[in-house]
Amino acid sequence: MKLWQKNTSTNNLVETFTVGQDREMDLYLAAFDVLGSLAHTQMLESIGLMTKEDLDKVQHELKNIYREIADGNFTIEDGVEDVHSQVEMLLTQRVGEAGKKIHSGRSRNDQVLVDLKLFFRSQIQEMVLSTKELFDLLTQLAEQHQDKLLPGYTHLQIAMPSSFGLWFGAYAESLIDDLELMLAAFKISNKNPLGSAAGYGSSFPLNRTLTTQLLGFDTLNYNVVYAQMGRGKSERVVAQAMSSIAATLNRMAMDACLFMNQNFGFISFPDELTTGSSIMPHKKNPDVWELIRGRTNQLQALPNQIMMLTTNLPSGYHRDMQLLKETLFPAFNSLMSCLDMAKLMLKNIKIKDNILADDKYAYLFSVEVVNNLVLAGMPFREAYKKVGLDIEAGNFETDRKVNHTHEGSIGNLNLPEVKAMMQNLQAQFKFDKIEMAIDKLVK
Amino acid sequence: MKLWQKNTSTNNLVETFTVGQDREMDLYLAAFDVLGSLAHTQMLESIGLMTKEDLDKVQHELKNIYREIADGNFTIEDGVEDVHSQVEMLLTQRVGEAGKKIHSGRSRNDQVLVDLKLFFRSQIQEMVLSTKELFDLLTQLAEQHQDKLLPGYTHLQIAMPSSFGLWFGAYAESLIDDLELMLAAFKISNKNPLGSAAGYGSSFPLNRTLTTQLLGFDTLNYNVVYAQMGRGKSERVVAQAMSSIAATLNRMAMDACLFMNQNFGFISFPDELTTGSSIMPHKKNPDVWELIRGRTNQLQALPNQIMMLTTNLPSGYHRDMQLLKETLFPAFNSLMSCLDMAKLMLKNIKIKDNILADDKYAYLFSVEVVNNLVLAGMPFREAYKKVGLDIEAGNFETDRKVNHTHEGSIGNLNLPEVKAMMQNLQAQFKFDKIEMAIDKLVK
Amino acid sequence: MKLWQKNTSTNNLVETFTVGQDREMDLYLAAFDVLGSLAHTQMLESIGLMTKEDLDKVQHELKNIYREIADGNFTIEDGVEDVHSQVEMLLTQRVGEAGKKIHSGRSRNDQVLVDLKLFFRSQIQEMVLSTKELFDLLTQLAEQHQDKLLPGYTHLQIAMPSSFGLWFGAYAESLIDDLELMLAAFKISNKNPLGSAAGYGSSFPLNRTLTTQLLGFDTLNYNVVYAQMGRGKSERVVAQAMSSIAATLNRMAMDACLFMNQNFGFISFPDELTTGSSIMPHKKNPDVWELIRGRTNQLQALPNQIMMLTTNLPSGYHRDMQLLKETLFPAFNSLMSCLDMAKLMLKNIKIKDNILADDKYAYLFSVEVVNNLVLAGMPFREAYKKVGLDIEAGNFETDRKVNHTHEGSIGNLNLPEVKAMMQNLQAQFKFDKIEMAIDKLVK
Amino acid sequence: MKLWQKNTSTNNLVETFTVGQDREMDLYLAAFDVLGSLAHTQMLESIGLMTKEDLDKVQHELKNIYREIADGNFTIEDGVEDVHSQVEMLLTQRVGEAGKKIHSGRSRNDQVLVDLKLFFRSQIQEMVLSTKELFDLLTQLAEQHQDKLLPGYTHLQIAMPSSFGLWFGAYAESLIDDLELMLAAFKISNKNPLGSAAGYGSSFPLNRTLTTQLLGFDTLNYNVVYAQMGRGKSERVVAQAMSSIAATLNRMAMDACLFMNQNFGFISFPDELTTGSSIMPHKKNPDVWELIRGRTNQLQALPNQIMMLTTNLPSGYHRDMQLLKETLFPAFNSLMSCLDMAKLMLKNIKIKDNILADDKYAYLFSVEVVNNLVLAGMPFREAYKKVGLDIEAGNFETDRKVNHTHEGSIGNLNLPEVKAMMQNLQAQFKFDKIEMAIDKLVK
Repeated sequence: MKLWQKNTSTNNLVETFTVGQDREMDLYLAAFDVLGSLAHTQMLESIGLMTKEDLDKVQHELKNIYREIADGNFTIEDGVEDVHSQVEMLLTQRVGEAGKKIHSGRSRNDQVLVDLKLFFRSQIQEMVLSTKELFDLLTQLAEQHQDKLLPGYTHLQIAMPSSFGLWFGAYAESLIDDLELMLAAFKISNKNPLGSAAGYGSSFPLNRTLTTQLLGFDTLNYNVVYAQMGRGKSERVVAQAMSSIAATLNRMAMDACLFMNQNFGFISFPDELTTGSSIMPHKKNPDVWELIRGRTNQLQALPNQIMMLTTNLPSGYHRDMQLLKETLFPAFNSLMSCLDMAKLMLKNIKIKDNILADDKYAYLFSVEVVNNLVLAGMPFREAYKKVGLDIEAGNFETDRKVNHTHEGSIGNLNLPEVKAMMQNLQAQFKFDKIEMAIDKLVK
Repeated sequence: MKLWQKNTSTNNLVETFTVGQDREMDLYLAAFDVLGSLAHTQMLESIGLMTKEDLDKVQHELKNIYREIADGNFTIEDGVEDVHSQVEMLLTQRVGEAGKKIHSGRSRNDQVLVDLKLFFRSQIQEMVLSTKELFDLLTQLAEQHQDKLLPGYTHLQIAMPSSFGLWFGAYAESLIDDLELMLAAFKISNKNPLGSAAGYGSSFPLNRTLTTQLLGFDTLNYNVVYAQMGRGKSERVVAQAMSSIAATLNRMAMDACLFMNQNFGFISFPDELTTGSSIMPHKKNPDVWELIRGRTNQLQALPNQIMMLTTNLPSGYHRDMQLLKETLFPAFNSLMSCLDMAKLMLKNIKIKDNILADDKYAYLFSVEVVNNLVLAGMPFREAYKKVGLDIEAGNFETDRKVNHTHEGSIGNLNLPEVKAMMQNLQAQFKFDKIEMAIDKLVK
Repeated sequence: MKLWQKNTSTNNLVETFTVGQDREMDLYLAAFDVLGSLAHTQMLESIGLMTKEDLDKVQHELKNIYREIADGNFTIEDGVEDVHSQVEMLLTQRVGEAGKKIHSGRSRNDQVLVDLKLFFRSQIQEMVLSTKELFDLLTQLAEQHQDKLLPGYTHLQIAMPSSFGLWFGAYAESLIDDLELMLAAFKISNKNPLGSAAGYGSSFPLNRTLTTQLLGFDTLNYNVVYAQMGRGKSERVVAQAMSSIAATLNRMAMDACLFMNQNFGFISFPDELTTGSSIMPHKKNPDVWELIRGRTNQLQALPNQIMMLTTNLPSGYHRDMQLLKETLFPAFNSLMSCLDMAKLMLKNIKIKDNILADDKYAYLFSVEVVNNLVLAGMPFREAYKKVGLDIEAGNFETDRKVNHTHEGSIGNLNLPEVKAMMQNLQAQFKFDKIEMAIDKLVK
Repeated sequence: MKLWQKNTSTNNLVETFTVGQDREMDLYLAAFDVLGSLAHTQMLESIGLMTKEDLDKVQHELKNIYREIADGNFTIEDGVEDVHSQVEMLLTQRVGEAGKKIHSGRSRNDQVLVDLKLFFRSQIQEMVLSTKELFDLLTQLAEQHQDKLLPGYTHLQIAMPSSFGLWFGAYAESLIDDLELMLAAFKISNKNPLGSAAGYGSSFPLNRTLTTQLLGFDTLNYNVVYAQMGRGKSERVVAQAMSSIAATLNRMAMDACLFMNQNFGFISFPDELTTGSSIMPHKKNPDVWELIRGRTNQLQALPNQIMMLTTNLPSGYHRDMQLLKETLFPAFNSLMSCLDMAKLMLKNIKIKDNILADDKYAYLFSVEVVNNLVLAGMPFREAYKKVGLDIEAGNFETDRKVNHTHEGSIGNLNLPEVKAMMQNLQAQFKFDKIEMAIDKLVK
């Protein structure tokens, strides 16, 4: 069944090629497609394009379908091209002629656009909540382990004393900036494209402001040509925000692999969270961290894939856009699983005691010694030179005391301020308003 | 002169390779490096690491150097490694011993970090202002040409009527969403990393809150390890925001090239804005648009370059980071010139009259006809089928009238609402507060 | 069942995350895994690590499993981690203790490496053959339509006369250069990594030269550390070769979409190869070409994904490598389907007659007129200027004759020479030798 | 001076924007532009489009200009748009009218195309020779240090014994496969596009076979439309080949940074090849390796930049192509300097003795012990389990002997075979033939 099918039958090969992974990908959109239709039909009735009686029948069955989807009782049947056709077919089977009217004043293009915006909005909510959980865990670990020192490296060379308080806290704070990008993605996703039809609007007197309110959007993509341009752009922006969280996790994973390496040996994990080797019986491999590292690289490559797909194309819909689904949709699960696994691992991390007692870390304290000379009145450049020469001559001595007090230093992690920043940012995602609108729509 | 140079002379080849394009790139940072030192030294005096007398001398000369940079009278001398060394050398030449004290409580790493944040903040301001000008021009053109129709294409096939009002307006609205990303980049850039030293903080009792206020930052990168992680991340986020504006310009440029093509012939530009051919005397080539298209592709590839440079590295500074400068810095000029050229071209655009009078555009109106049948009571699917069969049978007729009234359609561009969205967004960039802080610092 | 499992049970979440899509991806490798084991066990027997009796049993059952895979009667059972475990389990079920001995002198790492090389070699063969078919079709179409002219564009501006002979022929010749890259990928894939164990070799007296011959490889990856480095590298090189064919198809697809656009109208396709619109009954959309364009962009983004996954990692196996499977494997089907669809479309292409008769194409011939003046003795720059002024003054006239005779021009396509180049290149892929070796192994 | 300039003056801003970095980039092409003109004019004379007298004058001066370029006495003067205009202007100044005739039968497009192919061919030669030098150094180091053991890591976990013989040898062998891609790039670059004019051929009776021979090309890009398609494609292929060498150097650099880290401490370099810190006097930073790692990441991102620039464009020249110059050209120097620096560093490498004597490396030998049990008759899986349990119980013992004898293992590096592979590959680059042709052309 194809909505646009006329008298000629389409070549089977063409069908297989053009449908591609759409039927699988469209399952992600099913619930959101129904939401869009719930709002669209209310609006159609309000402008006289649907009778109250038809509306009631249609709303009743759409809500049923919504629940079936939520309960996992929804599939796209063989021979049905996509989710939109499946929902429309179910509806028409159940309510007859009335079901055929829901496509008035709407094109497949804006139907997909609104499904995507609703889907992305919902995925962003999940990612933000999961990121917040990781943030909470990291700040808690930073507090718990703030006195455990480890070597800080620059150029991968032993540099200065660091602490696990700093290490955990750094990744927590990183997630705040990552969510600034996610907030931008949220604001861009939280605008209603419904009513833009095929990208050039409609001669029906649609009330787009009404569907905007019903679906809990903050505002509209006003211009219908721009609404269509949002395809590919929303995907890119969401992917860019995801790439930022991914980059944070990637670095954490590389650190973890290095710190688990026996030459470093700073941290370890229980056996059930590591894996073995088929020929080396002594191995405790950090596969989880390695796969987080790998998956976050896939996620970092994602925005480029999207731009490659969309660049140099003129305005207006192109079928190429369909491939954005299979490019982006699986990435949501991928990032969510990386966040989940990072949390699982961090909850079970074991940190070695007295790491800095090892002789090879003595020079870590050279800057402290330089600074003490400066505090005692020696100009910095001279103090630097003196300590350098002492080290070369083997005369360097240190008491391995760290007394850092300024904002954000080992002795002063500013976790309350950092938590407040996160709190303030979270408040700018208006998830409550959206949930209320959706609840109202499906009740 | 190298700050870290001890008794061994570094191999010349190594020096050439490691300095790379740094001396050229560092010129972008000169003014911001002085700003950072102005704030840092005030702070040093406040915690007793510099005398009031030394501070006065140093501040006086730093302000002189700042003016010299502003006046274009600043160079990095041969044999001087980077901008930081050059400023410090000038200062020491002019104020003697006092100049050597400004490096206390600071590392090259946080010095570069703060320079970069200040530089990005400043570049973001320029890009936002330029983007706003383009937005204003586009909304003005949308208003002016709102009644000029052109064919709307989907799949590059003639689809439905569009208008130049929609076309210009779409790109205007696109820039708003682009600036949402730029706002995220701004917020991430507007946090103070100074005081993080080499990435592990300092044993000096630094007052980072003071430098934050002096430099007009909104807040701090608290965690010193995170402050260092900002290297590469700030660059990526800024580049991602730039890629979004670039993607908007890229599509506009492709449209323009297509619309200038003689088979379309919708728009044209004066001879002095087009170029010719060395063997085809009749050509009026859209080189400016082609180069905007090309440059915006370079800009879209940029975030990926940055991620490739930084992924899979453990935390802590690595020298690889230096290459971020040559990767990102020239891109600012590139984007600014694309914005400028787009404005120049659009100010001179000529739009063909009565484009839709051509017979090949008759089918554009088929959806109108379908909709009219629906409004007259026929179910959508039947109306669609009837018009399709009429077209196949050669019986399709139309009066070529467009009457679209809903939000964002040809007849209702909602430009005031769109302008208000832009106004509201602009207000969230706190450029005034920054300018006041900087003015106070250099006066 | 995990080969490396000892006394601790692995967390379920970890298992799900670490297995990922491996069970699905490994099905691609099943047949090749058996081939590797067939060769490895022959070698084990030759060096005394397996008895002749055990070898016979193992060989017999491996050949059975190979046939089962070929017949589609092979699955990776629930709870079995990967294809290697599945094959080993089947074998042990059927031949008992002897089955457990096949893992001697081999690690999972080199087992995967050899599976991958065999798989890539096989996929390369399929891609080369399919590309050759497209080449043959294109040269045949070039011959058939060599007299049909169309406008040649530069800067998307009407430039000079071109022909469908040139257009089809250009893409044919492009495929030759694409296959040069594929030949490099073939040569790199056609080297034996088996025997490198976990990447550091084995204390068993393996005979790697023997497995090299048995598997039909051209030579070995000698150095065992390099053999392991091939992971990620083979994938990248194969993907780069695929990206080249993809780029050729991408351009062809964009041309096709443009030429099908009604403003150009140069080519068309039967209804059953185009698709319609859900609201515009007159549309014949080029979805197949658009999806080829989109898929070939996914393919062009692929090498970057691989490099992002592998860059900045130190030598030695990392679990990140596993993700290369899901990144690359589906791309083979994607490219093959693009090649197939391009062939299907081109076989059904209809070319409009007398395209150049339209007035807007008159200036196409201006270079001809310039050249005629030059042949009559006028210096080029003067002739160019005269024709330019004639065009500006409206005095330009032309007889629309094209008489191009040089190599590769409209009148002289050099198809025999181009075909000979392809023939010569094809001969360098030694598929015959490989097929003979494999036949011998499984018989 | 612009060749295509007619009666209207081009806007200055447009000129600045469209010229971009072309004048700087074109200096790379100067010598090759003259070579192209030397061949083109000989051909013009042979078909009667230039007199023998004019040819002699033109050849004489072109050879002078060639020498001036070689001697560094060539610049593109202010106000001259590009190298082609500069050469033509010089020629006309020196030989008068005859100089104006060299542009007959040629367009700027094919002139640039042939310049690029000649330039790439020459750059490939330099890269191949430099890569060969690095290969020779690595094989020599592998021989010299074959008995020095180091830990082999998998998952960054201590795994099995490796050796510096293996480590150096692996990178040597990697370069061979890298050069397979470079050979493909060479073959693609070694085809003559001259005579394709603006991409649609010429009505002059050009003899493209003659210019092919004169310039030492192996064959032609026959089809003129394909010749033009080579723009962007040649660049991509060359960049892909470069990315392969880059990936090899990237891994080597990451290994080197890790091995120089004090927790590993396997290798070191003289002070003059490392750098210090502005606040940490004890640091010996591996900046050279870090910058090789960074630069090779830039090089790995390069093919993607090129594909982003060129994808989705229809056939025919577009001005976007100009930007390929600034994208690719500086990369040649970048890769050459990475190769040079890698050689400089490796020539000075110091390797620590008796690395494996440290207790933490004892488990490296567990596979040896498993294998010994197998050789003594125990099935592999049982031996594996026994050793694993011994390790867990603290009963593991080893004599730290490594006796690997198979192909490519610690005890048998197969360097002669590896060198022969390289020799055989080098012979396929026909640099001699090219040099002879060029010598003949300029003498």
